[in-house]
Amino acid sequence: MNLKTNLAEPKSTNGVWHHASVSRERRETLNQHKSVILWFTGLSGSGKSTLAHAVEEELHQRKCRTYVLDGDNVRHGLNGDLGFSESDRKENIRRIGNVSKLFLDAGTIVLTAFISPFKTDREIVRNLVPHGDFLEIFCNASLSVCEQRDTKGMYKKARKGLIKNFTGISSPYEDPDKPELVVNTGENSLSECVNQVIALLEERGIFIQ
Amino acid sequence: MNLKTNLAEPKSTNGVWHHASVSRERRETLNQHKSVILWFTGLSGSGKSTLAHAVEEELHQRKCRTYVLDGDNVRHGLNGDLGFSESDRKENIRRIGNVSKLFLDAGTIVLTAFISPFKTDREIVRNLVPHGDFLEIFCNASLSVCEQRDTKGMYKKARKGLIKNFTGISSPYEDPDKPELVVNTGENSLSECVNQVIALLEERGIFIQ
Repeated sequence: MNLKTNLAEPKSTNGVWHHASVSRERRETLNQHKSVILWFTGLSGSGKSTLAHAVEEELHQRKCRTYVLDGDNVRHGLNGDLGFSESDRKENIRRIGNVSKLFLDAGTIVLTAFISPFKTDREIVRNLVPHGDFLEIFCNASLSVCEQRDTKGMYKKARKGLIKNFTGISSPYEDPDKPELVVNTGENSLSECVNQVIALLEERGIFIQ
Repeated sequence: MNLKTNLAEPKSTNGVWHHASVSRERRETLNQHKSVILWFTGLSGSGKSTLAHAVEEELHQRKCRTYVLDGDNVRHGLNGDLGFSESDRKENIRRIGNVSKLFLDAGTIVLTAFISPFKTDREIVRNLVPHGDFLEIFCNASLSVCEQRDTKGMYKKARKGLIKNFTGISSPYEDPDKPELVVNTGENSLSECVNQVIALLEERGIFIQ
């Protein structure tokens, strides 16, 4: 049998032949956990990226397949062509949402750490994936706490007017109405916050067995 | 210790604290295989997607973590805003390259199945990742074989002038100069081609142990 026949047959008898081969479900069975998007949202300095990486560490030790998307690996690569205008920020989140969807399909627990200040953008991502696969985690820390930390010196620059559209200073942050989880990253310890996220995953049946 | 201290400490003593947590190497150890990009390139109808999915099936049975990027999961999502102009096709490949890089970092064997007709675009992707992590696989089938198959009826439309810039008809396909592998998808069976790809992965030490 040559390739031509081999290729043509499944397609002609079943249009989705090549989709069916390795499904999300088969990957989840292999991984011994379900895949899910953990969407961390909150002000700059609220601890999104640190918390996401700390949760990932815990999950990796449990032999879960994970990946963190954050400014470090997205802004200079995939979204290197985007600036900080309203439309670019929207496009930034749209692409991150779609990449998260690919990782979800790949069986990965994907953790995203972006300010993502607008409800509508977060809702767009939520609606990209099946119900229950998008868990919105609100990293709740007051502006004053975040500004006091100012780990990257961004708030100082924003106060001086050197950065336009800076969330919390010159652009709004819209609190989630019904996030799956609120972590008080301004008050609680990192390990407490990690435990809260892990408890959510247990409650949602992410770990198989 | 509150989160603020907890978050601030590692950052102030070590700027890359949160990057260090789960590395590509740790994921590869967990997976028992290295990650790599298998970049299938060739004419429409040359069997890229079918071969990529068949290789994935074989790898999944070997308990590898894999993901196929192809038109089905990329064109309607991440790259749904792109058309088929020269600049859009370039941007299409650029984004796919960057998403592949993320999957590579996540420890996954990522298989891409796009015509990707231009050498320069493929070289851009090759140069995005460390040497040896991009394996170019040329799905070599003659235009006449591909056109005879015409599984999607695209060649017929292109010949009628209904599709502009159609590779092989009204736009060039640039053969790779030094692909890591050439598979004769126009002549050999699917299983022969799969075996060739698996042999390449063995030769490259992708499977740990």
